Amino acid sequence: MKQLRNINYCDDASCGIGGSVCLPNSDYPRVLVIGGGFAGLALIKGLRKHKVQVVLVDRNNFHQFQPLLYQVATSGLEPDSIVFPFRKQIAEYGNVVYRMGSVLSIVPEENKVILDKGEIHYDYLVLATGTSTNFFGLENIEKRSLGLKDIRDALNIRHKMLQNLEKAAITCNMEEKDALTNFVIVGGGPAGVEMAGALAEFCHYILPKDYPEYPTEIMKIYLIEASGRLLSAMSEKASAKTLRYLRGLNVSVLLNEVVVDYNGEVVKTKSGKVINARNLIWTAGVKGQLPEGIGSEFLVRGNRIRVDENLKVVGLDNVFALGDIAAMITERTPGGHPQVAQPAIQQGKYLARAIPSIINNRPNKPFVYKDKGSLATVGKRKAVADLGKLKFAGFGAWLLWSLVHIMSISGFRNKLLVGINWALSYFSYEKSNRIIIRSYKDEK
Amino acid sequence: MKQLRNINYCDDASCGIGGSVCLPNSDYPRVLVIGGGFAGLALIKGLRKHKVQVVLVDRNNFHQFQPLLYQVATSGLEPDSIVFPFRKQIAEYGNVVYRMGSVLSIVPEENKVILDKGEIHYDYLVLATGTSTNFFGLENIEKRSLGLKDIRDALNIRHKMLQNLEKAAITCNMEEKDALTNFVIVGGGPAGVEMAGALAEFCHYILPKDYPEYPTEIMKIYLIEASGRLLSAMSEKASAKTLRYLRGLNVSVLLNEVVVDYNGEVVKTKSGKVINARNLIWTAGVKGQLPEGIGSEFLVRGNRIRVDENLKVVGLDNVFALGDIAAMITERTPGGHPQVAQPAIQQGKYLARAIPSIINNRPNKPFVYKDKGSLATVGKRKAVADLGKLKFAGFGAWLLWSLVHIMSISGFRNKLLVGINWALSYFSYEKSNRIIIRSYKDEK
Repeated sequence: MKQLRNINYCDDASCGIGGSVCLPNSDYPRVLVIGGGFAGLALIKGLRKHKVQVVLVDRNNFHQFQPLLYQVATSGLEPDSIVFPFRKQIAEYGNVVYRMGSVLSIVPEENKVILDKGEIHYDYLVLATGTSTNFFGLENIEKRSLGLKDIRDALNIRHKMLQNLEKAAITCNMEEKDALTNFVIVGGGPAGVEMAGALAEFCHYILPKDYPEYPTEIMKIYLIEASGRLLSAMSEKASAKTLRYLRGLNVSVLLNEVVVDYNGEVVKTKSGKVINARNLIWTAGVKGQLPEGIGSEFLVRGNRIRVDENLKVVGLDNVFALGDIAAMITERTPGGHPQVAQPAIQQGKYLARAIPSIINNRPNKPFVYKDKGSLATVGKRKAVADLGKLKFAGFGAWLLWSLVHIMSISGFRNKLLVGINWALSYFSYEKSNRIIIRSYKDEK
Repeated sequence: MKQLRNINYCDDASCGIGGSVCLPNSDYPRVLVIGGGFAGLALIKGLRKHKVQVVLVDRNNFHQFQPLLYQVATSGLEPDSIVFPFRKQIAEYGNVVYRMGSVLSIVPEENKVILDKGEIHYDYLVLATGTSTNFFGLENIEKRSLGLKDIRDALNIRHKMLQNLEKAAITCNMEEKDALTNFVIVGGGPAGVEMAGALAEFCHYILPKDYPEYPTEIMKIYLIEASGRLLSAMSEKASAKTLRYLRGLNVSVLLNEVVVDYNGEVVKTKSGKVINARNLIWTAGVKGQLPEGIGSEFLVRGNRIRVDENLKVVGLDNVFALGDIAAMITERTPGGHPQVAQPAIQQGKYLARAIPSIINNRPNKPFVYKDKGSLATVGKRKAVADLGKLKFAGFGAWLLWSLVHIMSISGFRNKLLVGINWALSYFSYEKSNRIIIRSYKDEK
């Protein structure tokens, strides 16, 4: 495949006029991909040898490995270990260009997308914009709690946590010390469970060393889940084991409990419970991140875009959606696929075959998701695994979890960094450097 | 030495009243150290076995290894490799407490310091607050250029640089592309020289790989120095060699040239030169960072505090200053000691012996600085060394430079990370992940 990028490169006269983004000329159809998460990246990788020009647009210049955000939040890993620059990724792909930008709106009737920095015309558009935290309209909570959906969220949690620990060292008021060091996590899915486990380990291993001025029992961690069990997408066995693990780590798990309000100091629940905590982490829901131009007629529950069995947006001709933002509603998947990495990656790979087929007028088989199983970890040597009929927990599950995650991270350098950090932390319970680089400001 | 921190720990009644910062009770005199740079940290380390209570106050929760800031700015190292949390440092020191805070003012007549978060009384006060960038009153430049004095400066440079490279990819206007990718560095001291060298290597090894859309000659680097030679604190030989190295790396070095104005797009010099550049890095001067309460009667040129031969502030009884902020004016050092790491570390060690002597009414010999020589690097395998009469350059100097810097960084984990990064980069010319986490906003 010949290099497209340096051939027929635009000059002032041929492009960029009328507010267009500067792009290389190409004789091949242009596939514009919005979002470089698991889905977008798998798609691009698959398209790299096909006769298309791929343009990747993302507001960040890096791919994020979301499953490990909680480790960045709790100072277990540094951000650069779990993000990977797009330009490094595509350096070997001759037909892919990256442009940094935020999508303002989509104009399907003109086959163009309007970014904050100009327009891009497409032959095929792929929406892979993922989800953001859903606060379900609870404004007080949205203003004062922290989500955990991207790397900035993770750093906000880390900075706020470390700042509050320092504030607690300065005050002599025991009640304030207590509130500053208490954590409430809302949502008992994988993000909430893993966050609670990591905080509990921080409390157990780091706090007494770094903050000898506190009594060890000062930091309390609450995990609040609206349904009757944790990790409700996994087996009953995994849920029960996870609950036992977390309680063993002194996490107060409240099931069938709903958080209704937060004033920055006191968390209130539906049943009337009141918890003093200056740290509230919200992992209780997500919603699709939609650019303008995709009206409600294209959407289903949770702001997801309805797609057909070939991932084409229902109602549009040359527009596709995949990953968390897409919902393929079929008899087998009445609620769409689970919003996790595996379906996103499989859909990306599928579409990388399907788009060239469409270009060449060949038929496509429908997309079929292969569930490879689920893993979740609670802490060192503690994890649960559901692999089809095989369900297990403990050291083996934890080892498998570690292995799967290291293998999935992009790039040799990142695998090495994560590996070293985990090895150091495994043998010493030492975490990476707990530093506050940007101070966190309370009210957004 | 018994653990002070957990003994007689304050309760609500005994401290923190009237706006005091919560601190453990102690029967020993309190030494309050403001600033945990090279000087402050060496002092604390030296005091750890003496019968004093040491309170360290710093607005950051980490020590910064300033000599490698330029590598963070150019994506060679991640911030966490060159900063080290104070709490990790002092975990083994029984008599040291750390409190995070900014000093608002000093009240020597009441032996107290007022922080943003409360007051602290002291028996002995040590000022080790270092310096900040000096723009010499050039407001336009201060508003639109970037200093390189702390880790946030370094990240600002990195983020602005990467953002401008992305902006340059989007525009079709060649003049704008050019301006966005040009760099002007002002100041030919070690910071400016090392920054210019690192940028030149970025331009040479990273740019063609990551940004194939640019012609390789697009990024131009200017280093502007007011005096007649680079690294004027080193030997003539080192200066000449450095100039040759930089010109060999295609850096345009302008000597005897002064930058007078910058509107964010065009740099103007005294001789009438005009350079299109959206990136201006200012390393041309520093000034002491003074808290209020140290009036001009205590100061000499460059906002430095005048100290006697025992590092006591001239005119105050129990207040000391050391490191970059201090100026010991003697016949041998009419301008004070050089504002670099070595005098700061030696002064810290000296004061760690001098303060216990004062407490025990023993006399102190004057402080004498031992110059161990100077090192500066321009790039891979390129460095200059002045070690007394021994002056050399090239691979040997570069190896020595690398070794000295790795040895000087705090902590095993940081040494390991820096070592791995340097090894990866040595063999592959690959840099660490070039990610923009916080976007840089142009006007401050």
